[in-house]
Amino acid sequence: MSPPDLPATLNVFTDIQVEPALMERLRTGIEPHRLLVAAAGGTSVLGGAPLDSQLAEAHIALGQPAVAGVLGAKNLRWLQVSTASITRYDTPEFRTAVADSKVVVTNSSPVYDQACAEHLLAFMLAQARQLPRALVTSTPSGTDTWYQLRASCRLLRGQTVLIVGYGSIAEKLVGMLAPFAMRVRAVRREPRGTESVNVLTPDQIYPALATADHVINILPDSESTRSFFSTKEFSVMKHGATFYNIGRGTTVDQDALAKALQDGPLSAAWLDVTEPEPLPTGHALLSLKNCFITPHIGGGQKDDMKDMVEHFLENFARYLKGDDLLSRVM
Amino acid sequence: MSPPDLPATLNVFTDIQVEPALMERLRTGIEPHRLLVAAAGGTSVLGGAPLDSQLAEAHIALGQPAVAGVLGAKNLRWLQVSTASITRYDTPEFRTAVADSKVVVTNSSPVYDQACAEHLLAFMLAQARQLPRALVTSTPSGTDTWYQLRASCRLLRGQTVLIVGYGSIAEKLVGMLAPFAMRVRAVRREPRGTESVNVLTPDQIYPALATADHVINILPDSESTRSFFSTKEFSVMKHGATFYNIGRGTTVDQDALAKALQDGPLSAAWLDVTEPEPLPTGHALLSLKNCFITPHIGGGQKDDMKDMVEHFLENFARYLKGDDLLSRVM
Repeated sequence: MSPPDLPATLNVFTDIQVEPALMERLRTGIEPHRLLVAAAGGTSVLGGAPLDSQLAEAHIALGQPAVAGVLGAKNLRWLQVSTASITRYDTPEFRTAVADSKVVVTNSSPVYDQACAEHLLAFMLAQARQLPRALVTSTPSGTDTWYQLRASCRLLRGQTVLIVGYGSIAEKLVGMLAPFAMRVRAVRREPRGTESVNVLTPDQIYPALATADHVINILPDSESTRSFFSTKEFSVMKHGATFYNIGRGTTVDQDALAKALQDGPLSAAWLDVTEPEPLPTGHALLSLKNCFITPHIGGGQKDDMKDMVEHFLENFARYLKGDDLLSRVM
Repeated sequence: MSPPDLPATLNVFTDIQVEPALMERLRTGIEPHRLLVAAAGGTSVLGGAPLDSQLAEAHIALGQPAVAGVLGAKNLRWLQVSTASITRYDTPEFRTAVADSKVVVTNSSPVYDQACAEHLLAFMLAQARQLPRALVTSTPSGTDTWYQLRASCRLLRGQTVLIVGYGSIAEKLVGMLAPFAMRVRAVRREPRGTESVNVLTPDQIYPALATADHVINILPDSESTRSFFSTKEFSVMKHGATFYNIGRGTTVDQDALAKALQDGPLSAAWLDVTEPEPLPTGHALLSLKNCFITPHIGGGQKDDMKDMVEHFLENFARYLKGDDLLSRVM
């Protein structure tokens, strides 16, 4: 069923920055509809993006256009954010405005969730196998150093995991953890009953924090998640627990984290996100030998931009048919 | 059913090196039978072990006793090697001698297979997520460095794996890879039909090597496996493939490996074993930025010695009942 009032030619605005062949794939993929390419692309959903006058003509937008541009685009019916995060748009004002103007908002979370989940499991196994230390240790079997290194390794098998922030990344990770026979629980603001693990609400978190060997933070940035992990949360964690963050740096009180890494109870932290990114020279977390940081690459992989374009084209075909869109967030 | 000629008191010799509490667990676990503790423990199944006169009195041995001691122990009925590797004993002469004297030989592979499989998956994910590079890169989103790092990441999902040497480690790894929907094949000298993946014989390896993104070597050391991976094997591998070794260093021609890492086709190698261990200062593999080496800790974890003692006690109970022993290798 087609949307009743679909113009013969839709204008699709995009500010994504991709190689020419991919832009061409997008252009031909939506034909006979028309692609309007922004003069200057957005760089990150976290920062601002320049206004582009072409947005005013657009029926559909793909990318990370400026909030003011989206709200001023009178013909706009659908915005597909090219990232998983929708931080820039996740305000009550924006939500109200798009609801009033009947603009649908989708994101690109399926493009990045597998890579993020693999990044998390890479972190968990690198910690369990003590890779950062093992890769710089050269010692024959049987030395004290060798025995200590072996003894500092852990099996993931049978350990306890608490995932805070349950969405598509968590869902993928839970699948990957199944062969390890771990005890996995998750915290979600509004459990839906469709989760594949035991789900708690945020008010039930403390006993769960106290028993988890691995605390995995996948919280997005919002007013309700800012500094979610603070002194109290770290202090109740199990002795020797490991903390992971692939959500947003703002959800963690980084001073409290640094203290928990220095004085306990944490054995290590593995972070793909910090606040700010990168951390300034001299930041406490940078000098800690048990704090491991990757520069916000969790969702990245060789084909991510290709996958992002294909995800849009799949949704575009659905849009033309009048089907429900994938990854709708507003 | 008890073995018909079981002495009232069995002498169990051991040269394992464990903390006193574990040795006490072993001593009480076999009571009323008698534990004979070697004066000097063996250090590695790869090297020699001192002869211990107590072995001559032993009906059962646990550890890595010297070959001459085992062959000279006239009362010996059963040797449980405390490692997964049985390199020292894996000769035609030893096999014939224990067959003639009806000595059963078991190993401790179930103690180490989970840790080894987790170590391999840690390697695979660390490579896929480019952890060694990512952990030392600090750059804001959107820089060239950042795009290059993201683009150098890969999803394990959908890639192709070839496992060479199919035993209990491979079996565990195959289970862990299931959620990644990878194409997994294995090479085994004598396929049994019980493997959980498509199994090839060594003569069928070349086409499989040519299509694998990940070539995983779990071969033990023996006359037939020495330098199994040599110039020809590396040269047919897929461009950009990654090579892993958690078997034995002797199964790889390390000069050929270094060349494949420098000139292609390999993108990286992850090794837990080398020949010798550690590699001497100045060795070609040590200077290669795409060669990652851990010091033979793949099977290690905090509780490995406890698990090794418990595995023996489980087999000891089976022995007393006349049941088939676990992990029988001869």
